[in-house]
Amino acid sequence: MDAKKNAAERAVEYVQHGMTIGLGTGTTAYWAVLKLGQKIREGLHVNAVATSVGTEKLAKENNIPIAPFSEIDSIDLAIDGADEVDRQKNLIKGGGGALTREKIIAYNSRKFIVVVDESKLVEQLGKFPLPVEVLPFGAELTLKRILSMGVEATIRQAENSNYITDNGNLIVDCRFGSITDPSSLDAALKTIPGIVETGIFLNTRVSTVVVGFKTGDVNEL
Amino acid sequence: MDAKKNAAERAVEYVQHGMTIGLGTGTTAYWAVLKLGQKIREGLHVNAVATSVGTEKLAKENNIPIAPFSEIDSIDLAIDGADEVDRQKNLIKGGGGALTREKIIAYNSRKFIVVVDESKLVEQLGKFPLPVEVLPFGAELTLKRILSMGVEATIRQAENSNYITDNGNLIVDCRFGSITDPSSLDAALKTIPGIVETGIFLNTRVSTVVVGFKTGDVNEL
Repeated sequence: MDAKKNAAERAVEYVQHGMTIGLGTGTTAYWAVLKLGQKIREGLHVNAVATSVGTEKLAKENNIPIAPFSEIDSIDLAIDGADEVDRQKNLIKGGGGALTREKIIAYNSRKFIVVVDESKLVEQLGKFPLPVEVLPFGAELTLKRILSMGVEATIRQAENSNYITDNGNLIVDCRFGSITDPSSLDAALKTIPGIVETGIFLNTRVSTVVVGFKTGDVNEL
Repeated sequence: MDAKKNAAERAVEYVQHGMTIGLGTGTTAYWAVLKLGQKIREGLHVNAVATSVGTEKLAKENNIPIAPFSEIDSIDLAIDGADEVDRQKNLIKGGGGALTREKIIAYNSRKFIVVVDESKLVEQLGKFPLPVEVLPFGAELTLKRILSMGVEATIRQAENSNYITDNGNLIVDCRFGSITDPSSLDAALKTIPGIVETGIFLNTRVSTVVVGFKTGDVNEL
């Protein structure tokens, strides 16, 4: 876990006094939240918004003040993990199921810092199944539509029933294998009504990728 | 109301024995549901899916059997109203707030018949405020993003609080005034995370528009 922890702690160095911070979800974001909590105990003042119910709980336990969206004007910096990062800094996110809230926060932040360990770096996206959030209404139709793209796709399960997102929706995991054009695929999926969001995060929205290595090194892309 | 009623009843003539029918929502779809109920009492056998909780209730009151999505293989014919229809048969829908469910049903039907009275025919879409369904999470951020497109937009209200869709989401009404390229606007809006669906229905998905006139005439486009 040290690679993730080191990278997450490096990312937290970008946090400055008075900022509004977007807090990611998952095992890497976990370390960032812990580090941010430590800095707050040492006197740092920030506001935060969380990308999941779980992260909001963790933040509160670490004395990080969570602001309601009605009270924030904008987000200065979002820090979050990723499931895959390609050479152009496009991402797949959503293994943890929080992709839509993560995307809302990331795409509305001035700076978006992605934190990963080296195992997430890939030549091309798609080996990790692409998570897509879909409405429960007519999900069978939406799934059929996705399958008609020639991709193997299944509704994510959790304890013998459908996994439900914080937004009350389902996740369809799509095994594309390789994604040659993330931007086009994202747009194509979004023409399907019933798809709320995809786990493709385009590089135009990524400021920096902080990578932790097994060796203990941390690099920034 | 006769223009709407005449057009809706004409549309129901497309229904054939054994079909699975998608039932729309709103004042025009209302007449279609009533007519379909009458035909069922006269011996027609069909299955139906409904685009709103309200329509499902109306259908059941009219003895129209509603099938769960898990039991239907595909939808043969969807019948629904529209708030605007342009010369190229692109639509704005969602005045009634059911746009996303309507779009899921319409886009997954073999045939999609739109029923309107002549007042809905326009040269160009956009005078009617375009409804956009957005997630409650971060809705303030999503609204700001929409406003940054230079459009006047407000979160729809109902009895002193936010209007809530059957999917548990909000509606943002966007006053574009005129929409020169519906396809591009639809795609542009969908790049904004937090937007679940837009009320733009592209003509590639519309089979027929049945128009009722004040004179009593009914025309098909």
